[in-house]
Amino acid sequence: MTASDAMLSAEPVTAAILVIGDEILSGRTKDKNIGYIAEYLTNIGIDLREVRVVPDIEDEIVAALNALRAKVSYVFTTGGIGPTHDDITADAVAKAFGVTIDHDPRAIAMLAERFPPDQLNEARLRMARIPAGADLIANSVSKAPGFIIGNVHVMAGVPSIMQAMLDVVAPTLKTGVRMLSETMRAGLKEGDIGTPLAAIAKAHPETSIGSYPFFSDTGPDTNIVVRSRDPERLAEASAAVAAMIATERARLAG
Amino acid sequence: MTASDAMLSAEPVTAAILVIGDEILSGRTKDKNIGYIAEYLTNIGIDLREVRVVPDIEDEIVAALNALRAKVSYVFTTGGIGPTHDDITADAVAKAFGVTIDHDPRAIAMLAERFPPDQLNEARLRMARIPAGADLIANSVSKAPGFIIGNVHVMAGVPSIMQAMLDVVAPTLKTGVRMLSETMRAGLKEGDIGTPLAAIAKAHPETSIGSYPFFSDTGPDTNIVVRSRDPERLAEASAAVAAMIATERARLAG
Repeated sequence: MTASDAMLSAEPVTAAILVIGDEILSGRTKDKNIGYIAEYLTNIGIDLREVRVVPDIEDEIVAALNALRAKVSYVFTTGGIGPTHDDITADAVAKAFGVTIDHDPRAIAMLAERFPPDQLNEARLRMARIPAGADLIANSVSKAPGFIIGNVHVMAGVPSIMQAMLDVVAPTLKTGVRMLSETMRAGLKEGDIGTPLAAIAKAHPETSIGSYPFFSDTGPDTNIVVRSRDPERLAEASAAVAAMIATERARLAG
Repeated sequence: MTASDAMLSAEPVTAAILVIGDEILSGRTKDKNIGYIAEYLTNIGIDLREVRVVPDIEDEIVAALNALRAKVSYVFTTGGIGPTHDDITADAVAKAFGVTIDHDPRAIAMLAERFPPDQLNEARLRMARIPAGADLIANSVSKAPGFIIGNVHVMAGVPSIMQAMLDVVAPTLKTGVRMLSETMRAGLKEGDIGTPLAAIAKAHPETSIGSYPFFSDTGPDTNIVVRSRDPERLAEASAAVAAMIATERARLAG
């Protein structure tokens, strides 16, 4: 076994996202965080395995969080850490971990960088309520911190703030071998290549091959995406797909 | 109790979305269906209670589907019903319901409207595999149908096709009293109104009041959204919020 093989056979690092907020479920706010975090994690070698969106109901948040944190290396939550009554994420996380929650002097100090004492009112101090034992995630945009407890990273829902927090958190994460991918546009309908593509997928079990139909200006088309952590396996399967596409194009043109 | 009261006290009709697809979790494809379905359901009086995104792994799909279908009136799935090897939703749904799955003559007839016999190959016939006992959902875009089994509606992942299927399904759904909402832009930071807003929320328990911060050209601002199925309760709570906003603006300006 080479060093590269050992690296490739290591356990993957996995993640889940828990989006918290009635506004996403009502459709009023269109989520922009799931796609951003998904792409971000893929790029640093972490596999996103599941996403859940739950309402601002404590029991729902607790149940989803406890289910997800047992399944993956890291959970990332978004939403529900602001200063208003509907921001209940910190309390729900404390409940999920069975720890107390109180105003955290470190978090108050962060808020004090932005707000003079007369503005540091009850509502804003709510954003300093942090579960016992949590580490804070700095917020360069608006100061109110996120936090990390166990394998759970609690972040803001506002995309610009969430993104800043993710940049702070990322260097602290263990990461896996990055998933490599190659995308090939077939110029063919998905149904024309389904059978030979299945044979290629079966012959290359160490890769994951996805087929994604779309409508282009010239009609139905398909993107084939080959994914693997091993560059050699990726190249082999991609070559097989490219050859199949050429064969099927010739067959259908002939 | 008036007829209106009886209507308002009826059990809400609820829903969940199950998005199936590695491409969403990898970030390669940005989901456009969750927000669309969420808004659609809200508009017809159905409460979306949860969303999950799972990979193309049968056990994961089965577990998520069985959890969700027990919790809500309707589940809507998107993705995984195409002609390629990674399209495993129909088989997973059959497994979740403990029923057999086979090529369905009704579905084959639909495919035959688009594909001449020489194009109705093994891959395309895969799209006619339907769990026993399911009803079909017509697909006006590309013919390959979705299906309904129990309270589960299985739809395509391509947004244009999913939207066409949702239009077919919607008239068959029982719907609740539509959730009404009023949105007020505060012109104030969320932290400035958190305390009085919490008091209003507490005083109007038959409404749901959300606070959504955003950055405008002039700096941090907040939208307050009051929601209720009862127009009178909505009006009362909205008036209270409007008065509070006026008071706080005057206080902060003074």
